[in-house]
Amino acid sequence: MRPTARQVAELANVSVATVSYVLSGRDRPVGAQTRQRVLDAARQLGYTPDQAARSLRRRSTQRVCLVLGSFGGVPADERLAADLHERADARGYSVVTLAVCSPARARSATDVLLGGIADGALFNVTGDHLTGDLLAELAAAELPMVALRNEDVPEGCDVVRTPETEACAEAVEHLLAGGRRRIVFMGQRCELTRDRPVGRLLGYTTALDRHGVAERVVIPGADDRVSAYRTAAELLRSPDRPDALFAATDRAAISVVQAARDAGLRVPDDLAVVGVGNIDEGLISNPPLSTVGPLRHDFTDVVDLLFDRLQAEEPPPGREIVRPWSFLRRGSS
Amino acid sequence: MRPTARQVAELANVSVATVSYVLSGRDRPVGAQTRQRVLDAARQLGYTPDQAARSLRRRSTQRVCLVLGSFGGVPADERLAADLHERADARGYSVVTLAVCSPARARSATDVLLGGIADGALFNVTGDHLTGDLLAELAAAELPMVALRNEDVPEGCDVVRTPETEACAEAVEHLLAGGRRRIVFMGQRCELTRDRPVGRLLGYTTALDRHGVAERVVIPGADDRVSAYRTAAELLRSPDRPDALFAATDRAAISVVQAARDAGLRVPDDLAVVGVGNIDEGLISNPPLSTVGPLRHDFTDVVDLLFDRLQAEEPPPGREIVRPWSFLRRGSS
Repeated sequence: MRPTARQVAELANVSVATVSYVLSGRDRPVGAQTRQRVLDAARQLGYTPDQAARSLRRRSTQRVCLVLGSFGGVPADERLAADLHERADARGYSVVTLAVCSPARARSATDVLLGGIADGALFNVTGDHLTGDLLAELAAAELPMVALRNEDVPEGCDVVRTPETEACAEAVEHLLAGGRRRIVFMGQRCELTRDRPVGRLLGYTTALDRHGVAERVVIPGADDRVSAYRTAAELLRSPDRPDALFAATDRAAISVVQAARDAGLRVPDDLAVVGVGNIDEGLISNPPLSTVGPLRHDFTDVVDLLFDRLQAEEPPPGREIVRPWSFLRRGSS
Repeated sequence: MRPTARQVAELANVSVATVSYVLSGRDRPVGAQTRQRVLDAARQLGYTPDQAARSLRRRSTQRVCLVLGSFGGVPADERLAADLHERADARGYSVVTLAVCSPARARSATDVLLGGIADGALFNVTGDHLTGDLLAELAAAELPMVALRNEDVPEGCDVVRTPETEACAEAVEHLLAGGRRRIVFMGQRCELTRDRPVGRLLGYTTALDRHGVAERVVIPGADDRVSAYRTAAELLRSPDRPDALFAATDRAAISVVQAARDAGLRVPDDLAVVGVGNIDEGLISNPPLSTVGPLRHDFTDVVDLLFDRLQAEEPPPGREIVRPWSFLRRGSS
């Protein structure tokens, strides 16, 4: 086993990113003592960044790796995969996919990438399993990377941001402006298991904070159409049922509209419903679904970042794309 | 580039499977002249089966490969992936996924597997892109394989059959027995592009044949919820609208039920609807969806075939599992 940047980081008691900065000679402020600790640890373990770089940068597998957060069922992932495959086909690359939906699988996916399974990787992993430290290990090995991610990324990794929190806050403010006061949030597991509100849930709490609404009702169910239906059906039977429901996915919101109609309620009069994602299926919902999301679903600009990076002679500095998100009011709210 | 079994097959003007039989010494009837042509071609190209066997059988990547026919959205694929990942985690294997939805990608996936990306592969590819010849190339390289497939598989490959045609015929006969006469079939691309009826479509035509019903109406749309809705909405506006619709997927059938209700039709009185797959979502459709499919959705027996094969000292002979399918009548028919 060759030493890894992670082992150097542990021995030097610094982050993997710091190891990467020090050993790559990149222009980042690292204190002299810290720098020395990293150099000592690297020497002690026999680690050199060139070694890792050789193993990944010079290898040409003609493969790219797509790293997703689920086994399927997420419409944006399907579109991203289709766009990546199309561009990869045109350039003579194969595509292999890894699914990361637990901390153990995030570790294992990182090891598979460090093992050189592909020439570059595109990440769209929701939740917090794929930590900044794991990405930093890959950056230290100079793997060309693009991440759809709102959290920090290591230097040299292209990043695509979606300002979902603000767009979700706008949707909840629209519900408040329409006189709704009992607004329930139906969340995804990856958000509900955090110790503080993030992403779409943070949009909900931010809007309620701004308008001084104290009541928060947060329920699970947004990952799965059937769970969403059953959870909503039970909620709508209760005497103090909500007057609005904001679901973290359109799939769940569509199930909630169905559950409301099956319970004899009118949408939006008795229950306003808003989803997230702007999937085409929202247009065939009855009434059409209000949603938060991108206006277009094309990921070719994201995919091109990766192929640009694969073709570059020298690794370019990390770039950032912001994909605009908006609140789209339709019939369900 | 090392020579491949395919090149030997082309030079000898035989199938890849024949190359495999001759060079592996397996007990299959191959004529003396053919055998000699294969041996000559192999010698001329410098190909030996041991070479391929060394490259795949003795390699231990601790990875298994899942080969699917789509980029997601197919509920059975998601369940298969979840079961494979769970078993793989328990055994210390990673899982990489390849998507095959064109002939070029089938070739590319085969090459990736021949390149040794994984210790074994599990296939669930609908359509005819993944030909028997490609599977035979992999079998010739002694890659441990399990295929969910109703077509032929090469020797040494475990196979899992789903008797879907007969179960679909039963569903259509149920519609005929209920007095329906204008029964439309909404198909998946992978079936509608064949030159003769196969799979679910063959179930439809078989039932109509048996009952002497001449009229066949076959429309696309079953791959996608939105296409299914729009295609059905248009069909239901026509003056000679059908009295029953059999959709090749439950996802499409659920959209058809919605389209019928949105058009003011009663399901099943004005339109009977039956899907395929027995997904949980059929239970929250209104009315609950009649369907054709397996009674349980557990793929662990299939996954275990692969790990058994990986652990075997000597490759065991190919095994066959038949997964029973039934017609399940619910409220929509």
